[in-house]
Amino acid sequence: MSDPFATTRDLFELPEGLIYMVGNSLGAMPRGVKPRMAAMLNEEWGAQLVAGWNGAGWFDLPRRLGDRIGAMLGAPPGSVMVADSTTLNTFKLLVAALRLAPGRRVILSDKGNFPTDLYVAQGLAGMLGQGHRLETVAPEALEGAIGADVGVLLVTEVDYSTGRRHDVPALVTRARAHGVPVVLDLCHSAGALPVDLTALGVEFAVGCGYKYLNGGPGAPSYAYVRPDLQADFASPLWGWMGHAAPFDFAPDYRPAEGINRLRVGTPPIVSMTALDAALDVWAGVDMAMVRTRSLAMSDAMIAAVAADCPGLELLTPRDHAARGSQVCFRFEHAYAAIRALMAEGVHGDFRAPHTMRFGLTPLYVSVAEAEEAGRRIARVINRRAWDRPEYHARTAVT
Amino acid sequence: MSDPFATTRDLFELPEGLIYMVGNSLGAMPRGVKPRMAAMLNEEWGAQLVAGWNGAGWFDLPRRLGDRIGAMLGAPPGSVMVADSTTLNTFKLLVAALRLAPGRRVILSDKGNFPTDLYVAQGLAGMLGQGHRLETVAPEALEGAIGADVGVLLVTEVDYSTGRRHDVPALVTRARAHGVPVVLDLCHSAGALPVDLTALGVEFAVGCGYKYLNGGPGAPSYAYVRPDLQADFASPLWGWMGHAAPFDFAPDYRPAEGINRLRVGTPPIVSMTALDAALDVWAGVDMAMVRTRSLAMSDAMIAAVAADCPGLELLTPRDHAARGSQVCFRFEHAYAAIRALMAEGVHGDFRAPHTMRFGLTPLYVSVAEAEEAGRRIARVINRRAWDRPEYHARTAVT
Repeated sequence: MSDPFATTRDLFELPEGLIYMVGNSLGAMPRGVKPRMAAMLNEEWGAQLVAGWNGAGWFDLPRRLGDRIGAMLGAPPGSVMVADSTTLNTFKLLVAALRLAPGRRVILSDKGNFPTDLYVAQGLAGMLGQGHRLETVAPEALEGAIGADVGVLLVTEVDYSTGRRHDVPALVTRARAHGVPVVLDLCHSAGALPVDLTALGVEFAVGCGYKYLNGGPGAPSYAYVRPDLQADFASPLWGWMGHAAPFDFAPDYRPAEGINRLRVGTPPIVSMTALDAALDVWAGVDMAMVRTRSLAMSDAMIAAVAADCPGLELLTPRDHAARGSQVCFRFEHAYAAIRALMAEGVHGDFRAPHTMRFGLTPLYVSVAEAEEAGRRIARVINRRAWDRPEYHARTAVT
Repeated sequence: MSDPFATTRDLFELPEGLIYMVGNSLGAMPRGVKPRMAAMLNEEWGAQLVAGWNGAGWFDLPRRLGDRIGAMLGAPPGSVMVADSTTLNTFKLLVAALRLAPGRRVILSDKGNFPTDLYVAQGLAGMLGQGHRLETVAPEALEGAIGADVGVLLVTEVDYSTGRRHDVPALVTRARAHGVPVVLDLCHSAGALPVDLTALGVEFAVGCGYKYLNGGPGAPSYAYVRPDLQADFASPLWGWMGHAAPFDFAPDYRPAEGINRLRVGTPPIVSMTALDAALDVWAGVDMAMVRTRSLAMSDAMIAAVAADCPGLELLTPRDHAARGSQVCFRFEHAYAAIRALMAEGVHGDFRAPHTMRFGLTPLYVSVAEAEEAGRRIARVINRRAWDRPEYHARTAVT
């Protein structure tokens, strides 16, 4: 059988000799972005000017992009919109979810959730001023904490700092039993492992465009609303692009149908065009095979580190079902070690205070490279390659 | 004296033979955007990958852009941030303004304000659920409506549909007398006429990047917070980029200092890079000369239409002080006339139900072209060039 990923790597621009394992923070650049961006500037903005809103399809781009991403997530056409940032879409969806369970004041999440999800929930709770509060529990305790006082469950499938993967079907089952709507954050899932929103049955989902979807730095976010909820769905952020008839310039807001209500202001077409081009790499890609390869990569990396440096603490679950598409280790000098690894041709990232994190992106990194990265990680630790003053100096933002 | 605008036109990509008068909707593309975008893709995202957040300065780009725009608006460094859309920034600033006048429930604006400003205020009022409401009056009645019950004055300096310009200093004086904070929308001001936020003394301001700033379709928005308010300023939209220490990944939100609180999620760097490149055209441009030329353009256009087609109703004030940088006419068949004008090489736009709108952008359109556009407008009306079935068929979104 031929390797289905033999050709996908060539779709990406990657510096020679680098094993890039931060695709879970910023995906590598698909080669198709450059010609598409040049065409957008030459043939759309430069040539059509404002007529590009219709002529080049800019006006409908957020929804077209939503449908493209939705097709990767088991979401039917018209149920996903691309707009704004993950944080802002989470705000919209949390408000919508709380409306489904009136009187309930708890936004439930777990301490492993990405901080921006927690922050936006805290800000929303304060703004509502009706006793709403964010409650967070340990990831393992999340399922048990779902009860009748919970107004919304806000959960990220894969933990950004450990690679731990929640049992989302189990969470959804319990949430449903207690009448709790779910906002599912797929930032570390979409493009990394199979997702079937229809099968899961969650009410809402959200995610970003710049990790495994490779849409470029700060690429716009997508948000999903379950089809049966769209008639009554309401976002609190009212803007002209979410109006039923934006070009009537009517004095009062009248929400557009369904998913279009997630639109707020004028969409950032330049960034969206990069994301649109980036999505082309998924043509013909089978997400089940992506998952198989991702697990082979993490297994190989974990095994290589365990063989050569058995003392390095693995933070990522060994159980396949509980693992996303990244491998994390705890190391006292994680920051310096990540910098030393850069000198060894492995790009991972540091998460405070002591985490070494490696994202696995099957489309452009191979199992052999993941194994080789594991060997180099072990070598950097074993040889104390990290123990140089320049690797400890923190001059950068991240 | 040499024409200071003789060279600025060459900085823009414009189709041959077109008189482009929709720069107040989407600015023409500065030529510098293309090489900058190619460099961003090749040397930043493509080569540095995630390290571009520091190495290419992406993390600080929103604030650097804010300072660049602030310098055009009389705002000191650190008082302007680029983030999200105009609508979303207006939401943040309205909440911040209402906090300054506790107990007051009225968001005051005028019926000439751009609808998205009104919609976001309506959505906010509903969300707060404490009796807040948007009140709108006729533009001429706005100053008189400012009273002690008003929690915030939301005003756009130049009316998008008529080109009428408010007397902002008079509004601010009365607002101050009644303790009313002001959110000033500069969408049709920035890059079109002199603005001095420091001299005006308004508390907050907001605007978009894609009109006279030429940042590309849906270019990100900017928002200003008066320096003395920044210590206590609070945005209700809490995200990790607005945290005091985003890379600590702390469980609780702690707002960053000052203007950084306007940041929410991960910024759309691709769109922001286009805006950054676009701002280069302003080097050495004197806004007073831009204003002089803009008024000469509108005068010439109005005079040409009046001479050849005296019956066409002018919606834009004849008084210079009350005029922005656009000219609008009322015509029963405005939609068809705008389409007929396209065939005559003049690109204007239609605003429902009966407005023909022409934006004046001194950097890349000349006084002679504005006059010539006026002649062609008159000709299209006089010769009933608009009266063809294909010009009446409304197939497009706008």
